[in-house]
Amino acid sequence: MSIRIGIVGYGNLGRGAELAIRHCPDMELVGVFTRRDPSTVTIATPGVKVYRLEDAESMQDQIDVMILCGGSATDLPVQSPQFARMFNLVDSFDTHAKIPDHYATVDAAAKEGGKVAAISVGWDPGMFSLNRVLAQSILPQGHVYTFWGKGVSQGHSDAIRRIKGVKDARQYTIPVERALEQVRAGEAPELTARQKHTRECYVVAEEGADLGWIRNEIVNMPNYFDDYDTSVRFVSQQELNEEHGGMPHGGFVIHTGKTGVNGENDNVIEYSLKLDSNPEFTSSVLVAYARAVYRLSQEGQTGCRTVFDIAPRYIALMSDEELRAKML
Amino acid sequence: MSIRIGIVGYGNLGRGAELAIRHCPDMELVGVFTRRDPSTVTIATPGVKVYRLEDAESMQDQIDVMILCGGSATDLPVQSPQFARMFNLVDSFDTHAKIPDHYATVDAAAKEGGKVAAISVGWDPGMFSLNRVLAQSILPQGHVYTFWGKGVSQGHSDAIRRIKGVKDARQYTIPVERALEQVRAGEAPELTARQKHTRECYVVAEEGADLGWIRNEIVNMPNYFDDYDTSVRFVSQQELNEEHGGMPHGGFVIHTGKTGVNGENDNVIEYSLKLDSNPEFTSSVLVAYARAVYRLSQEGQTGCRTVFDIAPRYIALMSDEELRAKML
Repeated sequence: MSIRIGIVGYGNLGRGAELAIRHCPDMELVGVFTRRDPSTVTIATPGVKVYRLEDAESMQDQIDVMILCGGSATDLPVQSPQFARMFNLVDSFDTHAKIPDHYATVDAAAKEGGKVAAISVGWDPGMFSLNRVLAQSILPQGHVYTFWGKGVSQGHSDAIRRIKGVKDARQYTIPVERALEQVRAGEAPELTARQKHTRECYVVAEEGADLGWIRNEIVNMPNYFDDYDTSVRFVSQQELNEEHGGMPHGGFVIHTGKTGVNGENDNVIEYSLKLDSNPEFTSSVLVAYARAVYRLSQEGQTGCRTVFDIAPRYIALMSDEELRAKML
Repeated sequence: MSIRIGIVGYGNLGRGAELAIRHCPDMELVGVFTRRDPSTVTIATPGVKVYRLEDAESMQDQIDVMILCGGSATDLPVQSPQFARMFNLVDSFDTHAKIPDHYATVDAAAKEGGKVAAISVGWDPGMFSLNRVLAQSILPQGHVYTFWGKGVSQGHSDAIRRIKGVKDARQYTIPVERALEQVRAGEAPELTARQKHTRECYVVAEEGADLGWIRNEIVNMPNYFDDYDTSVRFVSQQELNEEHGGMPHGGFVIHTGKTGVNGENDNVIEYSLKLDSNPEFTSSVLVAYARAVYRLSQEGQTGCRTVFDIAPRYIALMSDEELRAKML
């Protein structure tokens, strides 16, 4: 019997989850749930229905795991606790500072409903977090660094678009090569934001806009840009669409630790991602952990989990015997 | 209260474990157990005693976890089942083909003794295995490759030393750069052994030995060398000691998978290790999983485990709350 999946929210992440499920022989998409009018939403899978968000409550016996594909700012803080009472679920809540609160509310709701919820699943938080913990546990005397990019930051692109006279924009976060080299060399440098990443902006201005003023607004924007070396290039809408239409991202978790009687040996653990599609990869992680959530629930477990709490075997398609024989 | 650790076997791995424990504030080394005469073994930690292997049986109430640091050929197949009846333990059993058998005998012994045993812990098998499974679970449509090196292969070095006229030798396994590039580019190539790795040998010959014959014996040795491009360089014992005395190793697990409606997006997951000391890193992994084994045992679990069965939280020094607040 297949694991019956529901998708909540049909943006980039929801569409990615729908595609990822196709690669999972043990799963079946039951429905997509949206806040929009379902008749206006066309999905990629023939024969699968689109429902109103409110319809979910009456479908608890038809869905094993809900994959929540909304945003962390306003959707998930409401939806995850609400759905955790009714469904096993995974979400990709990524507001790092608010994770402990989110965990607490989702944990209480999931326990109340007798369900399992995995939160903050994706790549960061998610696979990067897991690799930070594994590395630091193995070499606790070491130093761990996270670099992001090269990739499109949605938040920074949005911040540029809010500037007067800006029609459209795309921002790339880029790790500084020299910083990567220092870290890999085991130098354990102290690095400022500026030393770790640069920011590259492609901006479409409205006709007649003051380009100098826009450039100035961008590079001096507090938090978003003023702590970084930022380059701004004005391009046509056509060039933006053609050259910068994708959603690539990725990054590096690098941990270095010295071993030996006098710390004479350098050891470097590195995990990296190079993704042509940030949302499609993130949703692939969500789908893998949906499998884990289902299995944990079948074992009678309840409550909230993160990637730290879930053994690799729970996300694997292979049986334990196969894993030991083929993958160990 | 500290986790009380015993080390079985005091070679490179045992010495590495002893050093790794120093970086773990939650652990304490209780004793080292050896097949040699304890009076001939001096260890690095003042105040810690060296015992005969047979003394262990009477010390079951003084040790929480035994770290088995013997070899996979003859030590661990005997020691792991024997000790699993008496102690929680970790081992680094790395004969891939025999892992299912080893698992079965250790599992039976551990269950009989009410203990937890983690086998095949290290980096390959171990962290590489874990990363293979995580990557393949997230992108099941993808292809995973493992490359080893640059590093010293003990087995291949030993094989050269057995050749007549060879005094000493060191063999490096080196991944082929072009193969790494093809894999990272998402080309999913089919690669022969020769296309993946080259072998570099540094050999000290006995005086008057036939160098041409030795070279021939090496490059044509079945399984070890005949499937690879092998280079042989004759050096003095002094040069071997000075330039090739270390035990570096490492490697790459690279998984590529296409996503998107028509597989138009390439995604690359890469995990790599660059180790100045193979045994010190391996034993650091063993020590981290000793923590997990202790905690699982405290929960009342019994039986055999691998890295696939153990959630990251069990090896972490931080509490669950700290992990979520700082590492997620």
